[in-house]
Amino acid sequence: MKRVSLRALLGGLFLFAGGHAADAPQFPPGAWRDISPDNLLLVETRYGTTAIELAPEFAPNHVARVRALVRARFYDGKSFYRVIDGFVAQGGIGEGTAATKDYPKDAAALKKWPPLKAEFDRPAGNDVVFTPLGNADLFAPQVGHVNGLPVGRDPKTGRMWILHCPGTFAFARDNDENTATTEFYIVIGQSPRRLDRQLTAFGRVIDGMQFIQKLNRGDPAVESGVIQDRSRRDRIIRIRLASDLPAAQRPHYQVLRTDSPSFAAEKKKRLHPAPEFYHRPVPQVLDICAVAVPVRRVN
Amino acid sequence: MKRVSLRALLGGLFLFAGGHAADAPQFPPGAWRDISPDNLLLVETRYGTTAIELAPEFAPNHVARVRALVRARFYDGKSFYRVIDGFVAQGGIGEGTAATKDYPKDAAALKKWPPLKAEFDRPAGNDVVFTPLGNADLFAPQVGHVNGLPVGRDPKTGRMWILHCPGTFAFARDNDENTATTEFYIVIGQSPRRLDRQLTAFGRVIDGMQFIQKLNRGDPAVESGVIQDRSRRDRIIRIRLASDLPAAQRPHYQVLRTDSPSFAAEKKKRLHPAPEFYHRPVPQVLDICAVAVPVRRVN
Repeated sequence: MKRVSLRALLGGLFLFAGGHAADAPQFPPGAWRDISPDNLLLVETRYGTTAIELAPEFAPNHVARVRALVRARFYDGKSFYRVIDGFVAQGGIGEGTAATKDYPKDAAALKKWPPLKAEFDRPAGNDVVFTPLGNADLFAPQVGHVNGLPVGRDPKTGRMWILHCPGTFAFARDNDENTATTEFYIVIGQSPRRLDRQLTAFGRVIDGMQFIQKLNRGDPAVESGVIQDRSRRDRIIRIRLASDLPAAQRPHYQVLRTDSPSFAAEKKKRLHPAPEFYHRPVPQVLDICAVAVPVRRVN
Repeated sequence: MKRVSLRALLGGLFLFAGGHAADAPQFPPGAWRDISPDNLLLVETRYGTTAIELAPEFAPNHVARVRALVRARFYDGKSFYRVIDGFVAQGGIGEGTAATKDYPKDAAALKKWPPLKAEFDRPAGNDVVFTPLGNADLFAPQVGHVNGLPVGRDPKTGRMWILHCPGTFAFARDNDENTATTEFYIVIGQSPRRLDRQLTAFGRVIDGMQFIQKLNRGDPAVESGVIQDRSRRDRIIRIRLASDLPAAQRPHYQVLRTDSPSFAAEKKKRLHPAPEFYHRPVPQVLDICAVAVPVRRVN
């Protein structure tokens, strides 16, 4: 009995944490899209390795920047120094370079990595396929998926943008729009949708979100959640691009194509979950940030 | 510059992880409600102690059951044996009582703790104050807060219920409605709102959510996320009711009254975040599950 209920409760979430092919429902081979090793960021902490797919189709300059930072080993040895439970895990500041200040500006780094022009949104063009979720959203005129990413779209302005859902990868910035340099954050809690289109989001965690959730937290009431005791800040051991690893060491991931009939069927399943468990009417609506896009690692 | 942006990004989330009084904005003393030690559950794991406020006004029988279980030390030494990233952390099964089975039924426990009648919802009566959020919701006809809890309400049926938001505390069950006995779960990811009114939710985490997020995860593709290697299951060291502790050892928490002008002002602030940081229009809508209800510990 217990086992039945566990399965029923689980619903369609089996792949959120990166289920493996053998255990996943069978989708036709053509329903899967390979993740390019050039777009696969591997973030290593003491808890494990987290995989992030970058989205150059949304923010080419930010993607180029993070690739360059990674290749320059900028992040290695730095830390997740501002982690707010239910909100974001932020890393990448030049901490530790000036012993006299709590949050030193790393002048050399700022010179080497000048502020980027914001890439908050992009044209809703035909170079990518937008698959509507199929229902309304509280925040955006339209929502759907592009290449596995949760996306908002505004037919009036002809723009689209990546939504702030759990796992969304983005660059932090200062007050002015065009001020992102090196700092990144990962959304770790209930979607902070008010940030949509206010910052440049350009990827999402596809595996290992549980390691990000293990990061030590700061006290959000003290210095905006910056962890005051440096010894409690979890280190970024290293960040690598999969394409910079020897081919034999690269993890190979696939994402279910969000423009495939298989994904359409997955969404439908969520609207009609196991009737032996769900006895009350299930609202016929999906939360774009609660729809898991199946991912599998194939090596 | 960085510090300014950090603060701005943070918005109204400062108390989500239990900020302390000294650092919180000043609310008038009358805006705070004391949490009764009879409704304060303290869940201790190796990561820290998580505080949960129980809601007898929503599910009196489930609250009575969990109090009795805690007083019988039922949970002590058991584990969070099914933890699915982005979904729920579940504990309380009678694991380890039958060495021959993976998920043994604890017959003695089932006899002692017979199935409960479902308390999925309750009358939207006048004994509690429902404060509307002020905007629509994707899933429920109306949403708002009751005693700090995110709540749905249906004027047609005259019922209301606790929503599945991050931190929501509930009892698991088998396929039939009236089958909850001892197992509990805590929502740890994007609100799984399809579970609303399908299970009995009767509390929420008010402090220490970050310790629940540190729990080891299972693989959702294998046995519904039950952690197969028992040595990786994080133990429940103990669960206690604050009222069962000596008075001097009881943590004393207060929650901002969700029917107070102070809370109304907090919600309004979320709709009009720092203009020096938010340069694009902010949608004038709130996600009920993303609205932090301020909590403070006063001892």
